[in-house]
Amino acid sequence: LDTPSKGAYAPLTREIIDRIRENIGERFVISDPERMDHYSGDATELRCCPELVVEPTSKEQIQALFGLANDFHFPITPRGLGTGLAGGCVPWSGGVVLSLAKMNRILSIDTENLIAIVEPGVINGDLKRAAESCGLFYPPDPASLDTCSIGGNAATNAGGASCVKYGTTRDYVLGLEAVLPSGELIQAGVRTRKGVVGYSLAQLLVGSEGTLAVITQLILRLIPRPPAVSGLVALFADLPSAMRSVTSVLTRGHIPSAMEFMDRRCLGLVRGLLPFDGLDRTGALLLIETDGTPEAVEKEMERIGLICLEGGAENVFMAPDAIKRARIWEVRRRISLRIEENAQVYIPEDVVVPIGRIADFVSCLSEIEERFDMKIYTFGHAGDGNIHLNITVENRQTLGRVAEGIRVVLEKVLAMGGTISGEHGVGLVKKRFLPLELSPVSVRIQNEIKNTFDPLRILNPGKIFEQCAGG
Amino acid sequence: LDTPSKGAYAPLTREIIDRIRENIGERFVISDPERMDHYSGDATELRCCPELVVEPTSKEQIQALFGLANDFHFPITPRGLGTGLAGGCVPWSGGVVLSLAKMNRILSIDTENLIAIVEPGVINGDLKRAAESCGLFYPPDPASLDTCSIGGNAATNAGGASCVKYGTTRDYVLGLEAVLPSGELIQAGVRTRKGVVGYSLAQLLVGSEGTLAVITQLILRLIPRPPAVSGLVALFADLPSAMRSVTSVLTRGHIPSAMEFMDRRCLGLVRGLLPFDGLDRTGALLLIETDGTPEAVEKEMERIGLICLEGGAENVFMAPDAIKRARIWEVRRRISLRIEENAQVYIPEDVVVPIGRIADFVSCLSEIEERFDMKIYTFGHAGDGNIHLNITVENRQTLGRVAEGIRVVLEKVLAMGGTISGEHGVGLVKKRFLPLELSPVSVRIQNEIKNTFDPLRILNPGKIFEQCAGG
Repeated sequence: LDTPSKGAYAPLTREIIDRIRENIGERFVISDPERMDHYSGDATELRCCPELVVEPTSKEQIQALFGLANDFHFPITPRGLGTGLAGGCVPWSGGVVLSLAKMNRILSIDTENLIAIVEPGVINGDLKRAAESCGLFYPPDPASLDTCSIGGNAATNAGGASCVKYGTTRDYVLGLEAVLPSGELIQAGVRTRKGVVGYSLAQLLVGSEGTLAVITQLILRLIPRPPAVSGLVALFADLPSAMRSVTSVLTRGHIPSAMEFMDRRCLGLVRGLLPFDGLDRTGALLLIETDGTPEAVEKEMERIGLICLEGGAENVFMAPDAIKRARIWEVRRRISLRIEENAQVYIPEDVVVPIGRIADFVSCLSEIEERFDMKIYTFGHAGDGNIHLNITVENRQTLGRVAEGIRVVLEKVLAMGGTISGEHGVGLVKKRFLPLELSPVSVRIQNEIKNTFDPLRILNPGKIFEQCAGG
Repeated sequence: LDTPSKGAYAPLTREIIDRIRENIGERFVISDPERMDHYSGDATELRCCPELVVEPTSKEQIQALFGLANDFHFPITPRGLGTGLAGGCVPWSGGVVLSLAKMNRILSIDTENLIAIVEPGVINGDLKRAAESCGLFYPPDPASLDTCSIGGNAATNAGGASCVKYGTTRDYVLGLEAVLPSGELIQAGVRTRKGVVGYSLAQLLVGSEGTLAVITQLILRLIPRPPAVSGLVALFADLPSAMRSVTSVLTRGHIPSAMEFMDRRCLGLVRGLLPFDGLDRTGALLLIETDGTPEAVEKEMERIGLICLEGGAENVFMAPDAIKRARIWEVRRRISLRIEENAQVYIPEDVVVPIGRIADFVSCLSEIEERFDMKIYTFGHAGDGNIHLNITVENRQTLGRVAEGIRVVLEKVLAMGGTISGEHGVGLVKKRFLPLELSPVSVRIQNEIKNTFDPLRILNPGKIFEQCAGG
């Protein structure tokens, strides 16, 4: 990783800070080092203290902040709620952190037009619950759904367990409003299901990790809430057989609303928390859910249960009740925290392989573990091939070898037709691996697009493909 | 509309044409004026004869063509199968038409990974049938599905009747390969359901109307084929009540796989072709379909039928058999051709309004018809608010007033929160109305993105927001 670097940026002088206070308002500015510490990192280990934090409640304040950044050439790093896993909101070049946490109003849940209009700081789970209370459904569900922001979800094109049926955040962003690095406001996209007027700037901003513009409002598509959900838990002797069953379910006509898995190591950490017996010898667990009308859901679960048994499941627990379901999901969503608690060094990888290759892919991991002195905890979204490899290392001195091992894993993923990140993005942590996946031509074009939006390089410098020096 | 203009482009000299023949191969070049006529327009009235047509079978030939265009500065206009409704493939600045019609191979239908890899000239319906024969489903279904190309669908982000449930072409493009105006090849996107490495160039190219790059290969997502489809036809006394029923169905938890409508005028043209009696006094027809498991589909159709009756339907014909369904769709998909046959001048508009406003919107059309001496045939995709307004004019001398009327309609659409194009795109025909929807800032950013991809302005000049002069 690059070291933090101010690059070509001048330090924030007292004069500049005073101008920011004047223009944005004293109470929206945080300069106390202890309070600023909270804004120095995300869910990775990366930390870099900003020189100032601005936490506005209006787009006009954001426009004013960019006005000053243009005049005085200081960097601005936008930040949702800091749950990212790639260092995307870490202010690696210093300057100002622009926190969107206080722009957290749900402006409308429009039940007639099936849209929600929200500010970027709204928590994903809050939007989900607001939609549900109106009989509607906002599907994207990253594991951090109770602590992550919709703006951050859009910036990273966050996925989640429901992606296998419902897609990612991208599929729900109809339109948005954003402040450009120039300070100008732009509306992109539409409020309707269709719209093809001009280039899709909304779709370009989704997934751009806060490097092109700061999203200040989102128009999101909602769908009717499925009347019923049911699920099953299937236990397998080993991970490859579990993964072969995943492929069988999908290629035999089913589209579950979730297909999650965890391996033996993960089960070792959370076994006692799960509401099932007999997990001692289990090599892999699948959690499969479907949603829809009650009659369809029940029949589909039966068929999927049979496919798992045919595929070698040693046990299938059908239709856990609501309390058990909630417990399973809680455990599933906290796995990465449990792994982190138990490790000296914790590196969350986030690869995707084509669903037909998942079993092959997981089969080759134990050899890599041995070769490179690392331990891999595997869990994630089996239904879309998105496998979270959580690598832990006992001894920081072997980190060089581990980095080599990660490169071997990522090369294998790409050779299988996969991608090195399915949900987390590139940010700082995957920059060095980016050239494995993207060609120089692609990076050049992306750099030029960045230049179009941000010619002075004041917005979130040093991320994705950009050299850290800035300026 | 601008008049065709060579702008700053030099004519294609004999020397240049010879170089193209040498580099691309004699048999891939068409220069006979009669044969070239076929490549001069699309499904609009717009025509402009190219100076040369190149119809290659490989990406290397396309790269070579762009190499020459860079050297000699001539414009290249890419073309799928010419079914567009916005003039997007009309070579308005002369130069070379690059036809993708012969790059029409389905390279693979991968049943294990649920993807198709295709060349851009593949006909939409051919891909649909190839997927179906493997138990899979490629949903996007523009009315021209038996004559339009997948490459053209991606270039325009084509929608169709199934959008209400399944989305548009954008939702099925996982990745693509394209030739940039520089002649370089680029891979964008992934082969998997998820992928967040770098800016989403694939999503930017989708809907860019062939102005940023020429797509040479597409990786498309397929889904399991729904085991059953059922439908109903509901007849209403007037269009607003039909549209109120559409909103009721959608806000009461249903997601039909199609919700098409036609108004009294359209029915007047096709009444005799439909397999139903009693259409004489019908003011509007709704065709609603759902797909899924047989048991779910049947129950859902019953509920939707009841909602239509509650909403004032005068008659509901449940579950037409396969022959009737095919007939209804044939009639529905040919309406625009029938309207065109019966008109002096035919202008297809393609607006979208929020679904809660559809009834209000169609209610105001008759006043506009009278005021501006035009006749509006209304049909389209009620479920996503995408209303095809087919305007016919008896007398070319009133075209000025009609243009004024169209502007009034589009302004009303935008005031309601809609968009001026849901499927057709901007091309040449909506350029003059673009500033109604997009701000100068948005247009400037789009122009700069165009410049990033095509600094010499050799690819499809004069389209969307670009002045026609080129160069």
